[in-house]
Amino acid sequence: MAARAGVSLGTASRVLSGHPATSPGARSRVTEAAAALGYRPNAQARSLRSTRTHTIGLLVSDVRNPFFADVAHAAEQAALDADYVTLLGNANEDVDQQDRYLETFLTQRVDGVVITPQGRGSGSLDTLIDSGMPIVFADRTVEGLDVPSVTTDSRPGLDEAIAHLAARGHTRIAFIGGPQSISTGRDRHDAFLEAMPAHGLEVAGELIAFGDFREASGTEAAERLLAVPDRPTALLAADNLMAVGALAAVRSHGLTIGADIDLIAFDDTEWFPFLDPPMSVIAHDPGAIGRHAVALLLRVIGGDTPESVVLPTKFVDRTRVAGSPHG
Amino acid sequence: MAARAGVSLGTASRVLSGHPATSPGARSRVTEAAAALGYRPNAQARSLRSTRTHTIGLLVSDVRNPFFADVAHAAEQAALDADYVTLLGNANEDVDQQDRYLETFLTQRVDGVVITPQGRGSGSLDTLIDSGMPIVFADRTVEGLDVPSVTTDSRPGLDEAIAHLAARGHTRIAFIGGPQSISTGRDRHDAFLEAMPAHGLEVAGELIAFGDFREASGTEAAERLLAVPDRPTALLAADNLMAVGALAAVRSHGLTIGADIDLIAFDDTEWFPFLDPPMSVIAHDPGAIGRHAVALLLRVIGGDTPESVVLPTKFVDRTRVAGSPHG
Repeated sequence: MAARAGVSLGTASRVLSGHPATSPGARSRVTEAAAALGYRPNAQARSLRSTRTHTIGLLVSDVRNPFFADVAHAAEQAALDADYVTLLGNANEDVDQQDRYLETFLTQRVDGVVITPQGRGSGSLDTLIDSGMPIVFADRTVEGLDVPSVTTDSRPGLDEAIAHLAARGHTRIAFIGGPQSISTGRDRHDAFLEAMPAHGLEVAGELIAFGDFREASGTEAAERLLAVPDRPTALLAADNLMAVGALAAVRSHGLTIGADIDLIAFDDTEWFPFLDPPMSVIAHDPGAIGRHAVALLLRVIGGDTPESVVLPTKFVDRTRVAGSPHG
Repeated sequence: MAARAGVSLGTASRVLSGHPATSPGARSRVTEAAAALGYRPNAQARSLRSTRTHTIGLLVSDVRNPFFADVAHAAEQAALDADYVTLLGNANEDVDQQDRYLETFLTQRVDGVVITPQGRGSGSLDTLIDSGMPIVFADRTVEGLDVPSVTTDSRPGLDEAIAHLAARGHTRIAFIGGPQSISTGRDRHDAFLEAMPAHGLEVAGELIAFGDFREASGTEAAERLLAVPDRPTALLAADNLMAVGALAAVRSHGLTIGADIDLIAFDDTEWFPFLDPPMSVIAHDPGAIGRHAVALLLRVIGGDTPESVVLPTKFVDRTRVAGSPHG
């Protein structure tokens, strides 16, 4: 019948069970096909489908990234408080691995999914949404998919960070961005492009490099930036792992952070204050992201269509010495 | 019939399917009960039970501990290579939470479980083993449970660390241990008690404190140790998170590591080399633990009874200055 109606099994099932997340077109096609085929709902199958497993699937981008470990931990605790066990998957910043996990969450009949998406994947996210699975995006979103989300606004924290660097006299500020296929990669890049002129600074094309939100890519990006003839005096990395990678590159060039060059990371970690020197950061709250995401998911599971949540960022200045690194 | 035989459903099922992991007593009780009840195996139910989900459950102690995040990542990649998807659970260093996850893994019909146990729990591990679920211990073991395991031998690395501290002239060496209910907590404590006299050093009872393998407990333990009248000149913490916690306490006392006091951590992390000063560590290989654990589990799933694996530890000296911290 789904085939006759030209819709997925999930859509057909949602229409017939009166689920709200169906388009008018799908509804009329499924209803017609059902009538033509003399469809009668199967009570047993319906009860099977509506059986709750009291599990939720949580797919994070990278379980070794302390930011996502904090999101996962907070989400899991919030879920347990509501009597749900969280099955955690690691997409490992890889779209194919994301596909594998989303399939598994479907066959394991989790009651809902929180995901920090890698992008749309090979239709796996569409399949999941189409199946009627309750779903919430955390930290990242996917353009064109209408899913409740919990994200952070990069702008306030990034603007304060650029103001801080401008006040320290920097003009050659480099940006190590994340993948532009990922919403947070785009947002942080856009926020950088906005903040620079707002503080009278010019964006130099050769001072922008992109990584993949992982450590090695931060090292490679910093190497490219430090090789620019009029080298940057400050680096701003779009996540904590690329900042650690950049730190390794800066050290290997014999440069001293705070004296020869400034380095600011997006994301805070519990050990950044103990670095040599302490890392200044654009901080947001991974715990709040995890808790809000589960709260939204429970509302979606309950049949609501909750509003998305946007959380703030702020700059945390850990500069030890007052001196300017390039004077 | 399981009730009549006085055994669990899992045991009854294993006896009737000829599974090797059953006791002679259980076998005879189940066989008698089956005969008395005129039991005939149900082929359909049997096929349902033997259906593989191609998932494994991986229960780590603390997903925010970078050591376990590395174990999880390596295990997940090894599992994917063998076409298994890993569902990750976080026990959060909590026995009750461990119970919840093990129940969930059973009802979600994973094909096998890798676990870094918190201890025996409220019988949940016994239930899991009794059900015939293939299971492997990673990093930690549980006394009295005969399960293949991948662990590390604390002794070589810890002995080198004490030798290093002895060579730097330390005599007041304090130990921040993990929970003695956990095998790695006991092993590292035992290895410390062995290594000290081996290098002509006395173990002072007031210089041993215990935490729970998490950061806050490391801070509290270090505070207690620093309050001892003839305070220690070196601290050795039994995991990376307690070492970070101890570092915070040392800093808050205005003490300089490498000058006023030495600090050594068990476990390495990618950012320990960037600390101020770099952290010397007793290193082992979380990736190897994860890979070996999955390799063992696949053999157990295949019907083998593999030998346990013990991996080495080694001391990594990152001391920057040659000076003695207490001379």
